[in-house]
Amino acid sequence: MGITKLLIANRGEIAVRIIRAAKEMGIRTVQVHSAADAGSLAVEMADEAIEIGPPPASKSYLNIAAILDAARQSGADGIHPGYGFLAENADFADAVEAAGIAFVGPTGDMIRAMGDKASARRAAQKAGVPTVPGSDGVIGDLAEAARSADEIGYPVMIKATAGGGGRGIRVAENARDFANLAPQAAAEAKSAFGDGGLYLEKLIARARHIEVQVLGDGTNFVHCFERECSLQRRRQKVWEEAPSMALTDAQRADLCMSAVALAQAVKYRGAGTVEYLYDDETGAFYFIEMNTRIQVEHPVTECVTGLDLVAEMIAIAGGKPLSVRQEDIQLRGHAIEVRINAEDPANNFAPFPGIVDGFRAPGGPGVRFDHMLYDGYQIPPFYDSLLGKLIVTADDRPAAITRLKRAVGELRTGGLKTTAPLFLALAEDADVQAGNYHTKWLEPWLAEHAGTFSDEEGT
Amino acid sequence: MGITKLLIANRGEIAVRIIRAAKEMGIRTVQVHSAADAGSLAVEMADEAIEIGPPPASKSYLNIAAILDAARQSGADGIHPGYGFLAENADFADAVEAAGIAFVGPTGDMIRAMGDKASARRAAQKAGVPTVPGSDGVIGDLAEAARSADEIGYPVMIKATAGGGGRGIRVAENARDFANLAPQAAAEAKSAFGDGGLYLEKLIARARHIEVQVLGDGTNFVHCFERECSLQRRRQKVWEEAPSMALTDAQRADLCMSAVALAQAVKYRGAGTVEYLYDDETGAFYFIEMNTRIQVEHPVTECVTGLDLVAEMIAIAGGKPLSVRQEDIQLRGHAIEVRINAEDPANNFAPFPGIVDGFRAPGGPGVRFDHMLYDGYQIPPFYDSLLGKLIVTADDRPAAITRLKRAVGELRTGGLKTTAPLFLALAEDADVQAGNYHTKWLEPWLAEHAGTFSDEEGT
Repeated sequence: MGITKLLIANRGEIAVRIIRAAKEMGIRTVQVHSAADAGSLAVEMADEAIEIGPPPASKSYLNIAAILDAARQSGADGIHPGYGFLAENADFADAVEAAGIAFVGPTGDMIRAMGDKASARRAAQKAGVPTVPGSDGVIGDLAEAARSADEIGYPVMIKATAGGGGRGIRVAENARDFANLAPQAAAEAKSAFGDGGLYLEKLIARARHIEVQVLGDGTNFVHCFERECSLQRRRQKVWEEAPSMALTDAQRADLCMSAVALAQAVKYRGAGTVEYLYDDETGAFYFIEMNTRIQVEHPVTECVTGLDLVAEMIAIAGGKPLSVRQEDIQLRGHAIEVRINAEDPANNFAPFPGIVDGFRAPGGPGVRFDHMLYDGYQIPPFYDSLLGKLIVTADDRPAAITRLKRAVGELRTGGLKTTAPLFLALAEDADVQAGNYHTKWLEPWLAEHAGTFSDEEGT
Repeated sequence: MGITKLLIANRGEIAVRIIRAAKEMGIRTVQVHSAADAGSLAVEMADEAIEIGPPPASKSYLNIAAILDAARQSGADGIHPGYGFLAENADFADAVEAAGIAFVGPTGDMIRAMGDKASARRAAQKAGVPTVPGSDGVIGDLAEAARSADEIGYPVMIKATAGGGGRGIRVAENARDFANLAPQAAAEAKSAFGDGGLYLEKLIARARHIEVQVLGDGTNFVHCFERECSLQRRRQKVWEEAPSMALTDAQRADLCMSAVALAQAVKYRGAGTVEYLYDDETGAFYFIEMNTRIQVEHPVTECVTGLDLVAEMIAIAGGKPLSVRQEDIQLRGHAIEVRINAEDPANNFAPFPGIVDGFRAPGGPGVRFDHMLYDGYQIPPFYDSLLGKLIVTADDRPAAITRLKRAVGELRTGGLKTTAPLFLALAEDADVQAGNYHTKWLEPWLAEHAGTFSDEEGT
């Protein structure tokens, strides 16, 4: 019982992270990699490495057949998908389990149920988790739509059921707006997607993104408190914290227990994250979606709870019960993670592939740097630009921000430009220091502060 | 009020550690260094660097006049002595304070009082802290000595009052032994030191070294729990833990409160460590000495309490009161530190100066590595061989040992041989895993295991 040899179907810092957890569990590791990643830290650290194809990812990290071949060839009895790539691909999860290999994550069916927005919303409602008020499905004629919008309360978002990626969304501030915009939206959706169906959702103007980490073994379910991830650029989180500074203890308990209720309702297996919008003005929270994988920002939760979430999910996939009870999980201190990307902050965050030289990792008390760097490492241009995640932990949020500045200041990557200067600038901002922001706060801030910070080290 | 510019009168990893604390406190840093250390990490990280002389240490790190000159030249209003070098030199502390500069440590008089074994023992006794039973001073004729030995209880150590460094010590197992050995010891002491005076001390056969971290601001005094440092080679600690696995909660409370009583009795200022012998058989503990500086092994205490001891001592030296009350200091988890030295474990730990190449620092959850390394760094041959301290923290001791093995296994230093393989071997030992050892345990173990582990990476 339990996984004895784990194949890591990912790359970069999360591959290194998974290897570390496996080593502590006495599990051998097999790192699959593209030709471009042959010199990666994960390949160096794993017990075995198997090349599965060339870049781009479609020919290697997304190649299900090649990954299953590597698993058979190496005798791996477990596969960890990390995040991104195949991590939320239900067919991959099914194929892995059909091959008699443990998938480190939930079943394919759970991934499907949570991957479909409408079914995830229904599951949340069934479990008593608040969802964003909306029309709950396609609305009929425009008169019915207008009545529905009145009930939801303005401002209302008008969305195309066949749409996606933010396309075709309109915001109506009042009934008059709605009467003008709804027909336009229906016509546009009809012409763009061949389907004029619309649905409505309440617009939460100043929303925070707060998410709850859950663990389940199919029988027992716990939360590991929440993360505050409202600082986003192009819907990508850039700075994450645990706990959220916006919640009272009572709100925290409500939010976290609602996430446990959802995990319980779907008999969740593995590590998952229930994401919410949180309305600062009313204190209400609304389910957005559930991510059925380990998140990039999981270390902030590890730092304030002492848990090893990756080890926990590997153990569960090996058939072991949860190692912790809810009452064992206690918050201590405050953690902040920032994403160190190979991007030039002075040039609209354009990717900046290059060679690491004169590398100095931040360190000392309360500093953890989960990265993939070493002197001489050449950043391949084929993948996302995440080089590492710098996580600081201190007694409270002001001390964590102070430590963050110190730690970011220690990072040296030679000629490589990174997002580090962004975090030094954010750490000095009064709104950031006060925790006074929402998901739409960072982009205007960046526009306003463009050119005021740059990676001087990299020039 | 408070230090604004701190001169670091030390080198290596502890200089880096002090710079990190100062940066978080918004204090500028001045790194003094020998010509041999111009390329050191501490020099790179400090705001300013001043060369104070050539190696060896007597011409630079021990040169009080040169250090005070550098302080005046740079306008430093505080000096942190680190450990070793001038850290427990009372005259240095006095000279610093006489120059109107804050010495980060206790007053010269406190250093003197604790530096003299007899006066420290008297201070401990006065504070009600148990000391090793002994003759409390020079004994007179041999008949009086024999009566005194009977009272102390055998086995008894016969020591020369004028001796030192372990010379002239004899162990009497019983009264008959004593009658034979005492005259020999007196004669030898007379001929070796010109003084035949003897004193007696009870021999604690299987003693642990357990020490309590204290903090004081002259008015308030707290303990930060204990460290277990029984794994020693040539009286040098090589592996340290917090908390000690040998103590019950009641024993822990007794031990720690006795250290607070001593700190209180001498109105201690700064960070200090009260060292004890602990007798596994009887559960009794005995004061050995008090170290009036930061210890090499302070990070294990930081990792289980969340405190920043270096920041605390800098704040106190700047005239600030203690930032914590006793009830705020809570233990969480278990931490182990091992000392990574540039020594060849396969060659009787001979120093192994060389160049760091292909450096990989251990990382991930629960790992802290306080070091001075970077690719291309040449280890100077003039100083002690400590390269860094690898500290792991986990929920409990077995998990910490597992994490230690994982983290030590990640360290790469290229062609440089280090003590890392020793810790992999110790971590696999049943007695180490059971915490079943004392201060005399490691040396015979090393003799027995000589040749069974070596730094293969470095060959």
